[in-house]
Amino acid sequence: MPDVISTDPRSGQGLAIGVPETAAAEVDRLCGAALAAAPDLEALGRVGRAALLRSLADALDDERADVVAVADRETALGAPRLDGELTRTCFQLRLFADVLDEGSYLEAAIDHAVDTPMGPRPDLRRMLLPIGPVAVFGASNFPLAFSVPGGDTASALAAGCPVVVKAHGSHPATSQLCFDVLSEAVRAAGAPDSSLAIVHGLQAGADLVAHPAVRAVGFTGSVNGARALLDIIEDRADPIPFFGELSSLNPVVVTPLAARERAEEIGSGLVGSFTLGAGQFCTKPGLVFVPAGADGDAVVRRMAETVRDTPVQVLLNEGIAASYGRITRELIGRADVDVVAHGGEPTGTGFEAVPTLLATSAADLTSGLTEECFGPVSVVVRYDGEADLFRALALMPSSLTATVLRGEGEDALPLEVSRRLRGRAGRLVYDSYPTGVAVSWAQHHGGPWPSTNSQHTSVGATAVRRFLRPVTWQGAPEAVLPEELADDYRGIPRRVDGVLRAAGA
Amino acid sequence: MPDVISTDPRSGQGLAIGVPETAAAEVDRLCGAALAAAPDLEALGRVGRAALLRSLADALDDERADVVAVADRETALGAPRLDGELTRTCFQLRLFADVLDEGSYLEAAIDHAVDTPMGPRPDLRRMLLPIGPVAVFGASNFPLAFSVPGGDTASALAAGCPVVVKAHGSHPATSQLCFDVLSEAVRAAGAPDSSLAIVHGLQAGADLVAHPAVRAVGFTGSVNGARALLDIIEDRADPIPFFGELSSLNPVVVTPLAARERAEEIGSGLVGSFTLGAGQFCTKPGLVFVPAGADGDAVVRRMAETVRDTPVQVLLNEGIAASYGRITRELIGRADVDVVAHGGEPTGTGFEAVPTLLATSAADLTSGLTEECFGPVSVVVRYDGEADLFRALALMPSSLTATVLRGEGEDALPLEVSRRLRGRAGRLVYDSYPTGVAVSWAQHHGGPWPSTNSQHTSVGATAVRRFLRPVTWQGAPEAVLPEELADDYRGIPRRVDGVLRAAGA
Repeated sequence: MPDVISTDPRSGQGLAIGVPETAAAEVDRLCGAALAAAPDLEALGRVGRAALLRSLADALDDERADVVAVADRETALGAPRLDGELTRTCFQLRLFADVLDEGSYLEAAIDHAVDTPMGPRPDLRRMLLPIGPVAVFGASNFPLAFSVPGGDTASALAAGCPVVVKAHGSHPATSQLCFDVLSEAVRAAGAPDSSLAIVHGLQAGADLVAHPAVRAVGFTGSVNGARALLDIIEDRADPIPFFGELSSLNPVVVTPLAARERAEEIGSGLVGSFTLGAGQFCTKPGLVFVPAGADGDAVVRRMAETVRDTPVQVLLNEGIAASYGRITRELIGRADVDVVAHGGEPTGTGFEAVPTLLATSAADLTSGLTEECFGPVSVVVRYDGEADLFRALALMPSSLTATVLRGEGEDALPLEVSRRLRGRAGRLVYDSYPTGVAVSWAQHHGGPWPSTNSQHTSVGATAVRRFLRPVTWQGAPEAVLPEELADDYRGIPRRVDGVLRAAGA
Repeated sequence: MPDVISTDPRSGQGLAIGVPETAAAEVDRLCGAALAAAPDLEALGRVGRAALLRSLADALDDERADVVAVADRETALGAPRLDGELTRTCFQLRLFADVLDEGSYLEAAIDHAVDTPMGPRPDLRRMLLPIGPVAVFGASNFPLAFSVPGGDTASALAAGCPVVVKAHGSHPATSQLCFDVLSEAVRAAGAPDSSLAIVHGLQAGADLVAHPAVRAVGFTGSVNGARALLDIIEDRADPIPFFGELSSLNPVVVTPLAARERAEEIGSGLVGSFTLGAGQFCTKPGLVFVPAGADGDAVVRRMAETVRDTPVQVLLNEGIAASYGRITRELIGRADVDVVAHGGEPTGTGFEAVPTLLATSAADLTSGLTEECFGPVSVVVRYDGEADLFRALALMPSSLTATVLRGEGEDALPLEVSRRLRGRAGRLVYDSYPTGVAVSWAQHHGGPWPSTNSQHTSVGATAVRRFLRPVTWQGAPEAVLPEELADDYRGIPRRVDGVLRAAGA
């Protein structure tokens, strides 16, 4: 197999990382080993896996300097951002350890035998079990938090599922380094060696999704990539769940009152959000609704100034840079689109992108303007009154987020906008920008298609639910039950005869 | 469009029900109306929808005599069974009303703003919302409990989702009658008229799944039917969740100790289970592992006697009867299969099936014998020792259920069998037969493929989860939040800052 190449986006120079792309036979071996490891990983129990996740976080923390340096060379995202991303990555590993300790994620329920209008009902006990080996596809834009040591891996391991990661071609060296660090920690924690594996190369990714041992797929990437993997899944003898987090437009509505009260702050904030990470966030605000008139003009003026002050940025890889160039050229060439501002001039080296602010009017809005473009570009849509705004909002595709920037104490218009966008968004953001996705119990990162995480999330405590499936035991002797379903177990919240009970109760 | 024909399976005679198959334009109109009704159905709130569900149950109870009579004429399932099925149908409508009252199905969670190692975290509030209009495909074998007034409809309406049911061709008159009864109750309860709609005809079903307004599909039927609908979903601009409950083999293991202790009871019980409803249960035990030797012989002898005493049965429709005839002939023609017993002789009228018991040895077991055959046939597999049994169990496909019939106090072998089948079943049954599926909080009816309900269930309280999707509000003013997410709301269990709290606390 050919060597895996790591490319420096600042220079465009490639470097072999000393690892070959993964051959089909090796993918098969790794998947078989993952399947064989599953019972032992599950047998570690919640306590054992919580300890494992904390060890993984500690191990990454210990290699922080190396990991950040390698990731910066491969992604050009900058050391401060990558340092923060590693902190987040370790935080979420530890959060899933907390989720295991708390235990309600198991949805344990006991219905004791009882007589009903349909006759005697047997004793039934339900709990979630690990779904089996999970294929995780690393994301280009988060080499840590959504890649080898990322949220999919953390939540799958928490659930008790061995993980085989497909390393993203944008950061194979970072992926391999993280894998080596985590693998050693897995062994040191006494978990099965094959709890975690890595593969490199596009074909290896396809082989992984087709492999009978793989029971679910976690994917962050493009719609086209996802469609190709879904085709492979459809062709399986046993189609499996696919949890994809694909593109997202992330509309933002600036209300007239907000524009009047804080045009400067909003203008700067929006540009900060859409150029963060060189605009390579799935939650980047791609379309910003700004009122027509002087207050809206002030918002756009401030956005333009901020864009002009933003230096040229470096994108993750050649494909993203080419796509950014093509899409922005197409947008700029449209009669219904004006160029408001460009950022700093390119130097001619590496995968550069010039930050760009475009504008159109709500009346002109068409579906050609509602497609995501990865990179530092956003389109301002000027609207003339609420009817004009609502007509344009009706054209919005589903997104991970929808944002309203309000005036102080303003409720009526935000409520109306929320009502219209709620069915097409996974997260509704108020008076903030959508690019931050906090890791917590109540977070949701998903939405209707183009998320296939429509009913589950890839960020936050409930992400573990993707890699679990329910099983009910009927009339079971205690010897065959998981300990959490024994009558006298009190370690986790459970539903007993329909009533939720806290741990200990 | 051609008239819809209702066929009496006892005579094979057809009768127009006075309703045409649903044309494409009408499917479009109904789906559009369902989408338009969704906000009002949701706005009824949990209290309003609980009242609606109870009214639907009351209305069905009031029309019990008519519903049972029409269903019996169309399905030949017999009045006692259909009377019981209607009781179950009403029970589950009322259970989902209880689920709404209890409210924890919303998974409400509040994370107050806090400082973290990654900086300040905003206020985040998560709750499940209705996914939108749901297409429900009625099942041939449960004209009530899995059809127009069935569990999919009940759980979707509970979630707040309008429902468009595709009536099954085996019982269109029952479907239309139930629809008329429910529709009137919907209006009387003050819910939107278009909360429930019905379509007839195969093409109408396909049109429904392709319709942009439909947001999820609940399906009970064949693997081939499901694959065809999944192809339609894959071709949508926005693929949607498909919850399919397809075929199932449902292996049963009789341990040597159980065979020794209670051969007679087990022999009769197994035949009762596989001939119940003329063997047209998705949980029918299709493969029964019985030990070699005298104790196992006694089980098989009793099974044979019971089968011989079972009269010829009437299947639901011509297609099922033809398929039953073909598959049993193929099985009987195999060199590795013996015919143990046949039931009563056919009369030559209607869609008859002769109950049939076949046998093979575990050593001969191949995948040709592990496919479901709808109807009153089961295959006994004689095993010679545990190694022989375990080798055969490894060939089992995934099923809705896996059953162990144990000796008194026996744990070791049942545990080992459970361990081997747990990954391939949704429900593990002990010392009972798999054909009863109680409706309760802890029930699970699903499993890995050929269930696509691999992570959710079509029976029991948690079935509502299929028709909900999470949304998170970030930094939201109270005016835009659902009442259940307000700080001072106490009506349902919620997770606040990571800690589960009971209602009122």
